[in-house]
Amino acid sequence: MRKLLFVYVALIGIFMIYVYQFHFKEVTPNPWDTQGLQGDINEIYIMVTFQSGMDYWKSSLKGFEDAAQSLNVSVEYRGATQYDIQEQITVLEQAIAKNPAGIAVSAIDPFDLTETIDKAVDAGIPVVLFDSGAAESKAHSFLGTNNYNAGVTAAHEMSKLLNEEGEVAVITLPNQLNHQERTKGFQDTLEEEYPNMQVVAIEDGQGDSLFSRNVAHQLMKEYPQISGIFATEANGGVGVGDAIRLEKRVGDIQIISFDTDKGTLDLVDEGIISATLAQGTWNMGYWSLVYLFHLQHDLTEPQILQTRDTAPLPLYVDTGITIVTDENVDYYYAD
Amino acid sequence: MRKLLFVYVALIGIFMIYVYQFHFKEVTPNPWDTQGLQGDINEIYIMVTFQSGMDYWKSSLKGFEDAAQSLNVSVEYRGATQYDIQEQITVLEQAIAKNPAGIAVSAIDPFDLTETIDKAVDAGIPVVLFDSGAAESKAHSFLGTNNYNAGVTAAHEMSKLLNEEGEVAVITLPNQLNHQERTKGFQDTLEEEYPNMQVVAIEDGQGDSLFSRNVAHQLMKEYPQISGIFATEANGGVGVGDAIRLEKRVGDIQIISFDTDKGTLDLVDEGIISATLAQGTWNMGYWSLVYLFHLQHDLTEPQILQTRDTAPLPLYVDTGITIVTDENVDYYYAD
Repeated sequence: MRKLLFVYVALIGIFMIYVYQFHFKEVTPNPWDTQGLQGDINEIYIMVTFQSGMDYWKSSLKGFEDAAQSLNVSVEYRGATQYDIQEQITVLEQAIAKNPAGIAVSAIDPFDLTETIDKAVDAGIPVVLFDSGAAESKAHSFLGTNNYNAGVTAAHEMSKLLNEEGEVAVITLPNQLNHQERTKGFQDTLEEEYPNMQVVAIEDGQGDSLFSRNVAHQLMKEYPQISGIFATEANGGVGVGDAIRLEKRVGDIQIISFDTDKGTLDLVDEGIISATLAQGTWNMGYWSLVYLFHLQHDLTEPQILQTRDTAPLPLYVDTGITIVTDENVDYYYAD
Repeated sequence: MRKLLFVYVALIGIFMIYVYQFHFKEVTPNPWDTQGLQGDINEIYIMVTFQSGMDYWKSSLKGFEDAAQSLNVSVEYRGATQYDIQEQITVLEQAIAKNPAGIAVSAIDPFDLTETIDKAVDAGIPVVLFDSGAAESKAHSFLGTNNYNAGVTAAHEMSKLLNEEGEVAVITLPNQLNHQERTKGFQDTLEEEYPNMQVVAIEDGQGDSLFSRNVAHQLMKEYPQISGIFATEANGGVGVGDAIRLEKRVGDIQIISFDTDKGTLDLVDEGIISATLAQGTWNMGYWSLVYLFHLQHDLTEPQILQTRDTAPLPLYVDTGITIVTDENVDYYYAD
């Protein structure tokens, strides 16, 4: 009888532990149902670009993926392979057809994608724009570089390199809005804050390194006193670097360039380009996904969502600029 | 013996369930350890303002609290009770002394808080600025209204109200930067996009409703053709509203005002103010907390953090503007 009693006691004890456990689990619901920002692995967020094989997108996509991992959701990457508006429209249409949890688009053109973007928003799909916007579209937010401010940063950096005096030039794409803004920020800042510095020329480099190299040769001939050149895009910077190396004026003329492709980084590493401006591409991707997640889960100010002319998310995010020199260039090869 | 056997079988069965459960729990780690964005309830994030009793802060604090709830962390609200720089410095010093997980500051002055903000950052405390910035400080980000763009929005809204023609005036605070920017955005947009609209006067309303009322009376006398007034701050808008009611020109002169205090909302509700611009205050608070959380948990692009001139977060977030009219005014009384 004693043994049987012991068994009963043990049995009841274990049963009580079991019940206690069960009860405990019942009163404490799964924390991720009520706390923490977490989605479902079946939620698919799509990033859509153009020239989709370009290195430039890698860091944005990494940010997009990192945010997806943080939030336990899934991502897909799609893009027009060429620099082709019609192709990007088709890719975006295909993304919409999958009815994803959200789409982050970098628009090849500020106008021609608007209708397709609006179609996605009208279908109830959250859409944000990153890097290249489409201001007239219904997309909920834009995340990218404030190009005017990037030009301001370039001007301050140039003034530091030249001890606030000397003649400088700009090699740019004069017909593209983002490059006009970079040039204007550069020029305004030098005019307003550095009276001993002059912008003596603003030239078209056609986004081509060979063409830009010839423009740089010409500049050095026309303005032998020139001591700094700001290239508003990477190919121009590489061309200017080549010209300065060929004319043996390295160190004598300071170059500030844009972006962090391998060609540019190599010239920074060699000391031919003094500094290049890295865009906040990881942040563009990361916060695009976080914004889409918030739209998808209605984690926005509730009253605003019920009204017209809504602004559920911040409208515009300036992802900023980091200055890359030979001191920190190594970190950028990793991208 | 049969009974005893039954008891043994039951006992072993329950034990196996217990072991299975235990095992199951072991191989599935707590999801919030590895997935989802979630902090600890003992992490304290502090919001610091000035004139801390003002209704204006309620919505930002609500956003800050909503984000804390999403992320399972805690918040505290502190502020100088008066419009007093020294008092806000003291309050910020006290916040730093608590070594919190992060501090969101709305700076009473763009310069005088810089030293204290930098002290917090140097002590390793994440700091972001919201609503009113301190551009020279080491704070990691600024989240607020782009005032120039708010002026642009006001101009488009005014043109809609007036069918793109007529004389308009601005009542503003001509010595404060944010109000200069609102005025400039308004003026530039009308000049560039609406050739049949003219800004005939820009007057100082001194941020006072009685003074602004008298300015509005004067304006109506000097410019009897005037058909619209943009007040860049709330007291001015209330004063203009009073003047127009007194002179029985309601409907004849359109008023666009700023912010959503009760006095302004009442005049929108009565149809005396046609529209007022609501700032994205909830978003300022919400995203301030999310940014601080990301800094606290090192959820930023890793390589950038190791370099100098770092930009771990987007530098500037324009939280946007929502137009409030009699159609959606009810949603704003809730704040």
